[in-house]
Amino acid sequence: MTPRPNQRDAIMCAALACFARDGYDATRTRQIAEAAGVSDGALYKHFASKEQLARELYVRGMYVFAEALDVASQGCGTALEALRAMAVRVLTGYRELPDEFAYGLLQAPPFAALELPSERELPMDVVARFIEQGQSDGSVRQGDTRTLAASFLGCLLQPIIMSRSTPGCVPDLLGDDTFDVTIVDTAMGAVSAR
Amino acid sequence: MTPRPNQRDAIMCAALACFARDGYDATRTRQIAEAAGVSDGALYKHFASKEQLARELYVRGMYVFAEALDVASQGCGTALEALRAMAVRVLTGYRELPDEFAYGLLQAPPFAALELPSERELPMDVVARFIEQGQSDGSVRQGDTRTLAASFLGCLLQPIIMSRSTPGCVPDLLGDDTFDVTIVDTAMGAVSAR
Repeated sequence: MTPRPNQRDAIMCAALACFARDGYDATRTRQIAEAAGVSDGALYKHFASKEQLARELYVRGMYVFAEALDVASQGCGTALEALRAMAVRVLTGYRELPDEFAYGLLQAPPFAALELPSERELPMDVVARFIEQGQSDGSVRQGDTRTLAASFLGCLLQPIIMSRSTPGCVPDLLGDDTFDVTIVDTAMGAVSAR
Repeated sequence: MTPRPNQRDAIMCAALACFARDGYDATRTRQIAEAAGVSDGALYKHFASKEQLARELYVRGMYVFAEALDVASQGCGTALEALRAMAVRVLTGYRELPDEFAYGLLQAPPFAALELPSERELPMDVVARFIEQGQSDGSVRQGDTRTLAASFLGCLLQPIIMSRSTPGCVPDLLGDDTFDVTIVDTAMGAVSAR
């Protein structure tokens, strides 16, 4: 019997919720199956192990994130406009999918990110594309494209990481977009040519 | 019998090495004791649990990092000079203590960062001090001080995080300081007033 695709989604969704609530290590596959409303056997038809679930959740999150950045960049006239639209999208994306961000940034076990498939664009690739375009037209500072893309993303993600890893350390960004302008400006300042 | 302080250091050092090699979860306290050359009983005289070890390692790392930033800032005439010296120090610090950075940024279990003691300055506090000073003299952009400090640190840490979490995704920074200038410039661009 072929496993049902909607079961697969339900299991991934349940896994994300369990990891968000209890952490990856404390979560047992049995709990995930229960939360998804499927049998242990059904879970194992879709995923060989909790490790595979962790990897697939990470990769799926990266694809969703990359797609959102790509969509945000569409219709922008210049590289800097595209980068600004993407920076805004990171912060609105966090509010739409806080569990996905928390998983990708804080909870995913280290092995989940070790090897990522290369057939589709990752968030880093989308950003690097516009960094490169901006370097060609002189609006983005010179330097290694992917290193600049990492710093750009770091400006946006570090306030999210810190607000979740150490509550109170920086303002909470989930319920409040007051600081978005500041954060977006830092990301633009990080990569803009002077 | 009072536990010996040099044993305590040996245990923390061994724990860091074990976490770096095998990950936090896969590491057993027995392995840490063995690697430190002490008995299980001796380990438990110093640390109640692996969880306590994880927390203390995280906090110690933060203190070492904050102290290094503070030292780097000394003798700098302006806030921007201090911020630049600290940015450089983050990257040289990573090369001096790669296991400590990998632990603090990637391997530490989420609970280790949840509550940090407030009696000493953390890295965020040191950076925020100079962000504030720069805002007063007009050299640093306006905005929430701690959010700006988080973005500043994100510029510097995200390339390190990505180079370790997904090798090949960005240039390796451990054996090569070619990209330091670019990274430091992004951090300065992130916070400098235009």
